[in-house]
Amino acid sequence: MTETVTLTIEQAEKLSLAVLEDNGFGEEHAGAIMRSVVAAQIDECHSHGLYRLMGCVQTARNGGLDTHVLPEIIDQAPAVTRVNAHKGCSLLGFEMGLPKLVEKARHCGISVLAINNCFHFSALWPEVEQISAHGLVGMAMTPTHAFVAPAGGTKPLLGTNPIAFSWPRPGKTPYTFDFATSMIARGEIELHRRAGKAIPEGWAIDTNGAPTTDAAKALEGAMLTFGGHKGSALSTMIGLLAGPLIGDVLGHETYAASEDAPGKPHHGEMIIAFSPETFLGADAQQHLDHAEELFDEIVKQGARLPSQRRFAARERSHKNGVTIPRALHDELLALTAPQ
Amino acid sequence: MTETVTLTIEQAEKLSLAVLEDNGFGEEHAGAIMRSVVAAQIDECHSHGLYRLMGCVQTARNGGLDTHVLPEIIDQAPAVTRVNAHKGCSLLGFEMGLPKLVEKARHCGISVLAINNCFHFSALWPEVEQISAHGLVGMAMTPTHAFVAPAGGTKPLLGTNPIAFSWPRPGKTPYTFDFATSMIARGEIELHRRAGKAIPEGWAIDTNGAPTTDAAKALEGAMLTFGGHKGSALSTMIGLLAGPLIGDVLGHETYAASEDAPGKPHHGEMIIAFSPETFLGADAQQHLDHAEELFDEIVKQGARLPSQRRFAARERSHKNGVTIPRALHDELLALTAPQ
Repeated sequence: MTETVTLTIEQAEKLSLAVLEDNGFGEEHAGAIMRSVVAAQIDECHSHGLYRLMGCVQTARNGGLDTHVLPEIIDQAPAVTRVNAHKGCSLLGFEMGLPKLVEKARHCGISVLAINNCFHFSALWPEVEQISAHGLVGMAMTPTHAFVAPAGGTKPLLGTNPIAFSWPRPGKTPYTFDFATSMIARGEIELHRRAGKAIPEGWAIDTNGAPTTDAAKALEGAMLTFGGHKGSALSTMIGLLAGPLIGDVLGHETYAASEDAPGKPHHGEMIIAFSPETFLGADAQQHLDHAEELFDEIVKQGARLPSQRRFAARERSHKNGVTIPRALHDELLALTAPQ
Repeated sequence: MTETVTLTIEQAEKLSLAVLEDNGFGEEHAGAIMRSVVAAQIDECHSHGLYRLMGCVQTARNGGLDTHVLPEIIDQAPAVTRVNAHKGCSLLGFEMGLPKLVEKARHCGISVLAINNCFHFSALWPEVEQISAHGLVGMAMTPTHAFVAPAGGTKPLLGTNPIAFSWPRPGKTPYTFDFATSMIARGEIELHRRAGKAIPEGWAIDTNGAPTTDAAKALEGAMLTFGGHKGSALSTMIGLLAGPLIGDVLGHETYAASEDAPGKPHHGEMIIAFSPETFLGADAQQHLDHAEELFDEIVKQGARLPSQRRFAARERSHKNGVTIPRALHDELLALTAPQ
């Protein structure tokens, strides 16, 4: 028996929906979550793919999110749409808020979608890529579990605070990045600990705030931001914009959020869309074409544009389907109701 | 004779105005430039202080900027104000565009000021701090001279592409940062070269794209971004937002800009303002107060908020005046018309 199972995209969608709906998720939430995890699986982002369904079910069982509540869309200001997720998953809030985000960006030039009080587990690139698919420039940020110390500090305070960006390139895959402002994913340190391997310097500090290469001590201590004090400042900015600016909590207040405890897994997400056509009118196309020169120059000198591995995976998956570990497939099947 | 000269702030302002006006700058531009360099001098940012007047005069003599043209303010969209600087200095464009930026942010929630076709030499923090002084959140970015290679690349392509951010803290100095996305300022490498000192690894690559600790080879080669591929992605984002999105050039097209050659020193700047009151209505104050918890937690664990050195210098300068090297003072005096 092989260690993996290959599913068609349709099978992956059906399995995801079955797992969610058989575990109490309403149709709307199940659909939005399915679309995000399948998109991640298609791009071979395994950490945000079908594997995440396990966490969603676990969190729901622990009462950590509302599986049925519909997000409330609030027309806050000419360029601001707020979504109160009412402790439901962020993804349905994003889907329902997106048309307003796009419409307001087209009208005003720039607009913000502020999602409050949401359960959030997903990668941000599927969202910013939905914005760039509309010919707009997308940016997204969210604060998360505070595992990260500020530069010069000694204790976890900042979330891993990811930022994502997508620039439209009609007829091509967009220029997209999506990264945590922590030096490394927490899971990487966990992998080192399990393998008994030292972590590189600069990833983390111990409980005394001293640099450590001991993975176990790092997990007890705090992770560091990427890029020293500059990364720390950016992480703080993300915490402020996707927190108090939109009337939501700070990263360290979501600390108790986890996939197997109810905790306080609800926080905010801030998404910005810029409309080149509204900024530039009839000149927009000329400047979008001009941006291609930057991408061409990057590639010409042997550097890579971000997300290329994902886009290559996407092409493969659309031909061959998606492949997941058999153990995961079995676990997911076990979560569905017997037919 | 001491090596330095201490001026009252009023004297520094008068000297700056005299240098600019006696060298052909119109009253409006002279005033805007004076306010920026004196603000930097007050904060002991010597590299953006009165020293920069030398470069402004030199650039004007070389025909690199228009010293009289008034910026054109364009009411582009409900949340977008464009300023065509017509090859004048960015600073007057910012000052004249600021009321619109603030007004539109208050009305729409978020707004953008896009300055095009400007000569730009100044620090960004005086601008974002003018925004936070209005109780708004400010962000600014600009592409500059392409001294920086993208991650994995071998040649200069990206500007040092700074980003600045300021969060209002009524009754306190704001939370402000302003940093280049290059690993280090180019001037730092120049200082190492002159001192015959090696530069640390990670700052730069040589003309073959290989890592180098030789400062001279680094200056011929390319600087690196901070934070590896993440910093490189951010720098690219800044180049796109403050370039093609606002209908302006890419960082590498400003490569010829320098203080002693006419070159092409004109590019764009993008400034964003967010209005907490428009996002949150009556709840704004409560959430701004809540943001203070993050700052308190940062300081409590022994980490520093950014810009504290500047704010301490500001307090000193308002008491004691500003101190500049005597050689600079002599050079500036020599640039003024004899009385």
